[in-house]
Amino acid sequence: MTFSNISRRQLIRTAALGVGAGLIKTATNAFQLEKASTISDRAHQPGRVPSKIGQRSPFEKPERHIYKALPSGWSMTPLESNVGIITPSDLHFERHHGGIPTIDPDKYELLIHGMVRKPLKFTLSDIKRFPAQSRTCFIECSGNGIDGYYAEKMRENITPGELDGMVSTSEWTGVMLSTLLRECGVKPKASWLLAEGQDAAALTRSVPKQFWDQAMIVYGQNGEALRPAQGYPVRLLLPGVEGNAQVKWLRRIELSDQPFMTREETAKYTDVLPNGKARMFSLTMDARSIITFPAYPDVLYEKGWWEIRGLAWTGRGKISRVEVSTDGGKNWQRAVLQDPVLPNCTTRFRFLWNWRGKKSYILSRAIDETGYVQPTWKQLIDVRGERSYYHTNNIRAWKVMPTGEVFFGLHDLI
Amino acid sequence: MTFSNISRRQLIRTAALGVGAGLIKTATNAFQLEKASTISDRAHQPGRVPSKIGQRSPFEKPERHIYKALPSGWSMTPLESNVGIITPSDLHFERHHGGIPTIDPDKYELLIHGMVRKPLKFTLSDIKRFPAQSRTCFIECSGNGIDGYYAEKMRENITPGELDGMVSTSEWTGVMLSTLLRECGVKPKASWLLAEGQDAAALTRSVPKQFWDQAMIVYGQNGEALRPAQGYPVRLLLPGVEGNAQVKWLRRIELSDQPFMTREETAKYTDVLPNGKARMFSLTMDARSIITFPAYPDVLYEKGWWEIRGLAWTGRGKISRVEVSTDGGKNWQRAVLQDPVLPNCTTRFRFLWNWRGKKSYILSRAIDETGYVQPTWKQLIDVRGERSYYHTNNIRAWKVMPTGEVFFGLHDLI
Repeated sequence: MTFSNISRRQLIRTAALGVGAGLIKTATNAFQLEKASTISDRAHQPGRVPSKIGQRSPFEKPERHIYKALPSGWSMTPLESNVGIITPSDLHFERHHGGIPTIDPDKYELLIHGMVRKPLKFTLSDIKRFPAQSRTCFIECSGNGIDGYYAEKMRENITPGELDGMVSTSEWTGVMLSTLLRECGVKPKASWLLAEGQDAAALTRSVPKQFWDQAMIVYGQNGEALRPAQGYPVRLLLPGVEGNAQVKWLRRIELSDQPFMTREETAKYTDVLPNGKARMFSLTMDARSIITFPAYPDVLYEKGWWEIRGLAWTGRGKISRVEVSTDGGKNWQRAVLQDPVLPNCTTRFRFLWNWRGKKSYILSRAIDETGYVQPTWKQLIDVRGERSYYHTNNIRAWKVMPTGEVFFGLHDLI
Repeated sequence: MTFSNISRRQLIRTAALGVGAGLIKTATNAFQLEKASTISDRAHQPGRVPSKIGQRSPFEKPERHIYKALPSGWSMTPLESNVGIITPSDLHFERHHGGIPTIDPDKYELLIHGMVRKPLKFTLSDIKRFPAQSRTCFIECSGNGIDGYYAEKMRENITPGELDGMVSTSEWTGVMLSTLLRECGVKPKASWLLAEGQDAAALTRSVPKQFWDQAMIVYGQNGEALRPAQGYPVRLLLPGVEGNAQVKWLRRIELSDQPFMTREETAKYTDVLPNGKARMFSLTMDARSIITFPAYPDVLYEKGWWEIRGLAWTGRGKISRVEVSTDGGKNWQRAVLQDPVLPNCTTRFRFLWNWRGKKSYILSRAIDETGYVQPTWKQLIDVRGERSYYHTNNIRAWKVMPTGEVFFGLHDLI
């Protein structure tokens, strides 16, 4: 039994608008729903009893995509199996520079020193005693998406997670950095801070004053203690800023009147522009989006209505609009955004599409509250040149074949 | 090194208000922060490499409190270790009536029949293809908190999770029930539905029409597939309604013009009022709150400023206010609510308290957007009588001893 296009469209519009609607007439072309006759039986034996820790269904095996299983390596969140915006903590992407250290929380200390009146050390219980805050926001590696465009490995059979899975979203809990800085008494001249990790790489980054008000010292992730791969027991959180500056296993903050010019902001995480100059401290993550369904390796098994779903995010506040094109970028239509839209947080978007069975390029573009529009590949390269590597936030395309197979659209299509 | 009360209060107010403030003078009585001299060293060996699935720190072992390890048993979320509002999926409370069945998602079917024009069966992929929605809200067992008040096991050494841990919060994803009902064509006379589970208990509950608009058929929990203990692959979600009606392992929905009067709404989940009548279909969860810190077995190890933290929630929309008393209910002050405050969702509240070292009763009360005020024990009993069992949402009290030890305050204190 199937449904007519017209009644189906009516259904879909009213559903998307949250408006009640009349009955749907049956006809041709859409879902294959069988008229009920029998149903599968209920369980006849009692099932498993309550336990201390729950488990996933044996039929569900989400996994991070491991890119490099090295101390300086990374793994990526399987965006294709993600629903909603929260990333399960054990699937949060990883990017380590010296592997994951094991830190005893009872021995943990955070030092704040440099241009302060009073350098202080804080234990974990000191930090937890200060007024707490929670914030749901994304963390993204500034290298996210590189493989889709620059590497020799560029390929059509790449999944959303393999392409853009170095972004994850959690509810983070901790104390505002400003609260701790107030304890130490920041000297008026201080305008940069150095954040240093306790990992074997002792990763260090300089953070200018403009980001301090929003910064947090976090010990909680999705309702529980921070996971080791995200910096247990304490990391720096800088909403909207590139991930590597949100130093994990945070050990030390030093205040200064200038940046520290560390390895990770000179040799790395910096781009060469067409004029030969270096683009440094490109800390804010620009708006971007990705369609996570349909995408490789999904197959649209029939013509008709399909809901295009994806994620959009920006480091400059809230996403204000997401537009979807199903004709390779000629025409754009507004997608529905899932409430609540939070600042510096992934936002789920949805768009109903009646696929006619033809080869189609489907694209999404994000617009944020500052008016920034996610650029095309050409627009990005015009500004950044061919030697740029990080912050590859151009519009992504997926190619739907007449067979219903879906492939990554590569960058030369728009 | 410690801080003066005055400057500390200043710090705390400005921090809570998110306003910048001057430096904090050091003096007496508060945090024990050591002036920095040396800090613990960084790791000298590379740590663990990226992996497919992350793990908790070996120093963190949160566990559900198992109440009854039987097919008809329950386990409770450790609210005392929870930060923020999200409950990690493997710590979501459980209440099963026939244990957890193992269901093959490829064989799963949902039948909707009864007073509909067209009874239909939906496979899991049918359900996932419909327009999706996400919603962050709590689920609570209507028996939550009973042990603190009615049982012979009533005791002072009970933790927040052992007392009130049958409430958990997740980001749920699925399809609106109204979307599926529209496919089936609900007959005008239909005013109740029966939801039936596929578990060995075949748990059934009747749900009146007033809850259908908000109802969802959910397959996602905190960004991934629903966990088996929460109904994998599909459960009914009724935001704000008592947990057992949000039938897990949902197998069948039957529409009718009257309630079905099942075992779980006649013999159980119904209360006897003072006049001998039964209080049935008491589906909406009334507003309540609990302080999760400080609580048993916390110890306030010194006088001074402590942040009282807790959770408040209501089945009638949003929490509009939480008030805290530190003198056994004589005086009440407004707590700070964590943004965003979402409807039918736990809301984190925080209140800064300067503990003078005296025996103190600390209490919280929730007020929701309908004006409903969480009642005292006496107010509750005046209405419900002594034979009532479910919906025990009276104000909870914790007793702080001069030693700093904290115990459950029992019900006869207010």
